[in-house]
Amino acid sequence: MTERLVFRVDAVDGQARAGEVVTRRGAFATPAFMPVGTLGTVKTASPGEVEATGARIILANTYHLFLRPGTATLDAVGGLHRFMRWSGPILTDSGGYQFFSLSRLAKFAEEGVTFRSHLDGTAHLFTPERVIEVQRSIGSDIMMVLDQCPALPAERRTLEEAVDRSTRWAARSLAVRADGDGAMFAIAQGGTDVSLRLRHVEQLSELGFDGYAIGGLAVGEAPEEMYATLDAVAPALPATRPRYLMGVGRPEDIVEAIARGVDMFDCVMPTRNARNGGVFTRRGRLNMRGARLARDERPIDEGCRCYTCMTHSRAYVHHLIRAGEVYGIRLTTLHNLTYYQDVVRGAREAVLEGRFDAWRRAQHAGWEAGESS
Amino acid sequence: MTERLVFRVDAVDGQARAGEVVTRRGAFATPAFMPVGTLGTVKTASPGEVEATGARIILANTYHLFLRPGTATLDAVGGLHRFMRWSGPILTDSGGYQFFSLSRLAKFAEEGVTFRSHLDGTAHLFTPERVIEVQRSIGSDIMMVLDQCPALPAERRTLEEAVDRSTRWAARSLAVRADGDGAMFAIAQGGTDVSLRLRHVEQLSELGFDGYAIGGLAVGEAPEEMYATLDAVAPALPATRPRYLMGVGRPEDIVEAIARGVDMFDCVMPTRNARNGGVFTRRGRLNMRGARLARDERPIDEGCRCYTCMTHSRAYVHHLIRAGEVYGIRLTTLHNLTYYQDVVRGAREAVLEGRFDAWRRAQHAGWEAGESS
Repeated sequence: MTERLVFRVDAVDGQARAGEVVTRRGAFATPAFMPVGTLGTVKTASPGEVEATGARIILANTYHLFLRPGTATLDAVGGLHRFMRWSGPILTDSGGYQFFSLSRLAKFAEEGVTFRSHLDGTAHLFTPERVIEVQRSIGSDIMMVLDQCPALPAERRTLEEAVDRSTRWAARSLAVRADGDGAMFAIAQGGTDVSLRLRHVEQLSELGFDGYAIGGLAVGEAPEEMYATLDAVAPALPATRPRYLMGVGRPEDIVEAIARGVDMFDCVMPTRNARNGGVFTRRGRLNMRGARLARDERPIDEGCRCYTCMTHSRAYVHHLIRAGEVYGIRLTTLHNLTYYQDVVRGAREAVLEGRFDAWRRAQHAGWEAGESS
Repeated sequence: MTERLVFRVDAVDGQARAGEVVTRRGAFATPAFMPVGTLGTVKTASPGEVEATGARIILANTYHLFLRPGTATLDAVGGLHRFMRWSGPILTDSGGYQFFSLSRLAKFAEEGVTFRSHLDGTAHLFTPERVIEVQRSIGSDIMMVLDQCPALPAERRTLEEAVDRSTRWAARSLAVRADGDGAMFAIAQGGTDVSLRLRHVEQLSELGFDGYAIGGLAVGEAPEEMYATLDAVAPALPATRPRYLMGVGRPEDIVEAIARGVDMFDCVMPTRNARNGGVFTRRGRLNMRGARLARDERPIDEGCRCYTCMTHSRAYVHHLIRAGEVYGIRLTTLHNLTYYQDVVRGAREAVLEGRFDAWRRAQHAGWEAGESS
């Protein structure tokens, strides 16, 4: 039988790793950033444009696709890849995070999560098994198990119960995996309580997954708390499997997580911020609404080779964003997605060449220096 | 001195004409449809995508660009072509239509129009001369003169006064034209009163413009009234100059206007309807929100070669439009713009081959037949 997922580490520099993940629908280099395509579209961008940014894997959302277009449609049209015309790998999150962020609509029990649709209020039950079935309809190449992510701050007892239940749910997920399925990643929880995190990692490692994610971070804690948690947790995850930090984050968070041994990332920041005119550059962030950009004929980022920076001036993007024009948010989105890919590719090259720490310091220096003008 | 605009008629079939307009920034075949790029962007589309639909000239809006980004910025960045990266011809409307559609904000006098910005309420004066200056800052290749378009129904006396004033304004516009300027088109008004229309056409023809537009149609009258007006007015416009029907319309209106001798068109319908999920096809219109499209794997229009139809299914576009995804309105916009270009190109080829009437009947038959499924 073909392996569902092969992971090869090409080089290690400190804790940082450069590698490659091979899925049934093609390979991607690590560290990897996955653009978020919640509803089967990376907001504003075509599949070809997403690929042109350098992305080789995207993330889609089990909860949202279950509600729209629904599994019956996904089954009828042959799965999400064919539906959206993306032939590369797709990772799907399990819905656990949505039940955390939409928690007033969700009730947790041992069987699973009962929730109401945020669209029409209809009631549904997601069990660990059902979540795998939905991801099967999507055609996910990397399925995430359903987990329970309690809101912080929480009592240690609450966190413990969530961890133990998430382990039982992970085991139930593994038990229903079928031959044709994609790979399956488990999600380690435990808040910022390192001993609990390590206990969860140990439980999940014993079950044996294709990869391991760290969930429940970047949910409001200070960056230093997140980094301290990663210091302890990332190296504890099996070294032979990809390590995925869910929902993180700013470019600096990604660089710091790579430094601590993380291989995979996703975040809505590059696409969500773009829609408000926020762009990320080699010299820090820029708000395209700023009046001083009105006649600035430079590209958003002089060091960038994306379509936006090769074609249009800051002045024009500023005008479009201020006028609420869709083409403006296309341009900021393409730039941000390209920049995030440039960050992870830069990290990979630095690790391969054994100069990760110098590269990392250069990134921080650029962001802190800002623009001379 | 180079002519500002050369117009060549290649063939005539009945009243329908096939020709070419050469501007200082390149040529376009007629009949021509100009996508509307009000604020210096054809909504949702990149300049390259607009060109790929077949469009060779776009329309921009003097009133809107005067307010945003303003002439100081346009002057600083070297005009609209450079600002938006569109190297082909741009026609700019004069603002007359905006003062009609935003009439509660505008006051007409002999000197010009005093109006308040729909954005921030600031007061401005547009004289015929000032409107030419603004179009000069834009870098317009075909400038439209300021005209007065009264709301219908109106007393004959009101219409007459508007016509006579529009003629005086047209003469004032011509008087301030400078050597480096683009071409200048006048706009014939007169509502559906044919005698008044003909009087206006005669007055404007005597002044001598590079082209002539018919304004003040498709403002609520029945299609048959518009066609009857065109029957009388279009042939009265100088045959050696391009004839432009402003703001029209549905594909059937464009075909009927071509049949009556019109050469140029613009309309927001393909882009505006697209944003609501409305698409135009060889088999009539389709609303992409319709539930019966949820699993329809056909392209929007089987006869279409646009990116949307070559790439994505109705089911996927339906999903995106229902979910409010920007990529969905990009797809419907690209399709509609391509379809409008296909209509005018089809008309041109039919005229060149002397089979316009058969082609025209075939278009109507297709729209009326609808879909077999």
